[in-house]
Amino acid sequence: MPSQAQIGVVLVSPRNPLNIGAAARAMANFGFDRLTVVAPYEPHWREARSAVGADELLQNAHRTESLAEAVAACTLVIGTGSLTHRKPEQPVVPLPALAPLVAAELARGGRVALVFGPEKHGLTRDDLSWCQLLLEIPTDPRQPSMNLGQAVAVCLYELAARAFPPPAAVPAATPSAPAKGPAASASLDRLAGVIEETMAAAGYSPRSMQQANRHDLRLLLRRLAPAAQDTRRILGLFRRILWRLNQIQKGK
Amino acid sequence: MPSQAQIGVVLVSPRNPLNIGAAARAMANFGFDRLTVVAPYEPHWREARSAVGADELLQNAHRTESLAEAVAACTLVIGTGSLTHRKPEQPVVPLPALAPLVAAELARGGRVALVFGPEKHGLTRDDLSWCQLLLEIPTDPRQPSMNLGQAVAVCLYELAARAFPPPAAVPAATPSAPAKGPAASASLDRLAGVIEETMAAAGYSPRSMQQANRHDLRLLLRRLAPAAQDTRRILGLFRRILWRLNQIQKGK
Repeated sequence: MPSQAQIGVVLVSPRNPLNIGAAARAMANFGFDRLTVVAPYEPHWREARSAVGADELLQNAHRTESLAEAVAACTLVIGTGSLTHRKPEQPVVPLPALAPLVAAELARGGRVALVFGPEKHGLTRDDLSWCQLLLEIPTDPRQPSMNLGQAVAVCLYELAARAFPPPAAVPAATPSAPAKGPAASASLDRLAGVIEETMAAAGYSPRSMQQANRHDLRLLLRRLAPAAQDTRRILGLFRRILWRLNQIQKGK
Repeated sequence: MPSQAQIGVVLVSPRNPLNIGAAARAMANFGFDRLTVVAPYEPHWREARSAVGADELLQNAHRTESLAEAVAACTLVIGTGSLTHRKPEQPVVPLPALAPLVAAELARGGRVALVFGPEKHGLTRDDLSWCQLLLEIPTDPRQPSMNLGQAVAVCLYELAARAFPPPAAVPAATPSAPAKGPAASASLDRLAGVIEETMAAAGYSPRSMQQANRHDLRLLLRRLAPAAQDTRRILGLFRRILWRLNQIQKGK
């Protein structure tokens, strides 16, 4: 059974303690817990680990001196970064296409590392030589460079959502009514009847228009497709209005 | 042709200037540029806008006093947040399933708002009553709460990557509704106002229920999601009813 423990995040020489914390938080959000930090700037590393809210994940993070060491146990090493300034030597995979590759690697018992470079200049050519694949997050050419914590979040979201298909089927997203099933045609007709009476009582339209209005109203209610419960609610409102219109009409 | 300019990001009362900046950066990374900030804490808003690197996007951001105003022109308003503490009143869509819904809305010429709440407690029940859908980022139950800047990045990545299919693949727009595009949030609010007056004139509910009814009515109209033309038609009907109720009331 593929597990998120087979995927690790590697940060190479991160400079900003806030970014280290943000990467760790994104990992926790998406259920990953293997963090390795390569050759961090020592004061910032200490600061990140002692920050309020720095959690277990950061306390348990590995620290290595080299990227080679950090990815030693991994079977698929994926480097991230913008490719604007270099000609890649490895295959480049856009993030939306990554999940099947990772899923296949997990299925055969592999271990995957996602490697992120330093904030300023990203992974060096030498760093990349440990990577089988280059991962590209598709960004706007006018502003291609992402914040480290945000880049980690986006990559892990994608993998968590799409490299680990849930055992059962994904629940069909209900775009429409939350309210207990659709209304039956007959209840729509009942509602249409009361609305029509209300229109008449309010003098909404001349009698000659009645046929056309009835037709339009029927179509309108079907376009709206209210759920059963909402249909009852709207019916209640129009009944009250109608009753009031009639009551006043009778001079009470 | 669907465009990213049809999608806006709305931040409701963000507290942390760094988060405002991070949200703006993620927007620029993924090619979005319509940012609205609702009732920001003034000093932090000023700080965010004057930060080094705060770009055009932040300078051009809109600022409104209310969420209603921020989403007035939108036809699909999507609230984000964790649902751990409440029972949602709207349909919930997991982020990986969102793109087709947004793509359909863009194809029929709609305008979409993604609404993010304040860092601490997220969107209130009242905020959510302006939303047709709730968006849930699937996170680990042990650490469900995301950093604001990271949440924005993840949502925009998903939409940029999957709601804008290449020109050829765009699905033919809406085989169903005849009625010329969706109603904007502000027209729904206008309709709700007239219905509320009608309810009062018909003695539909006691004054003490007014708040609750207003909330329910707002949600009901968003569930029904009437097209622009239908919204005008329903408005016309209620205006007539209201006029009639008032006229009779005055003893004419």
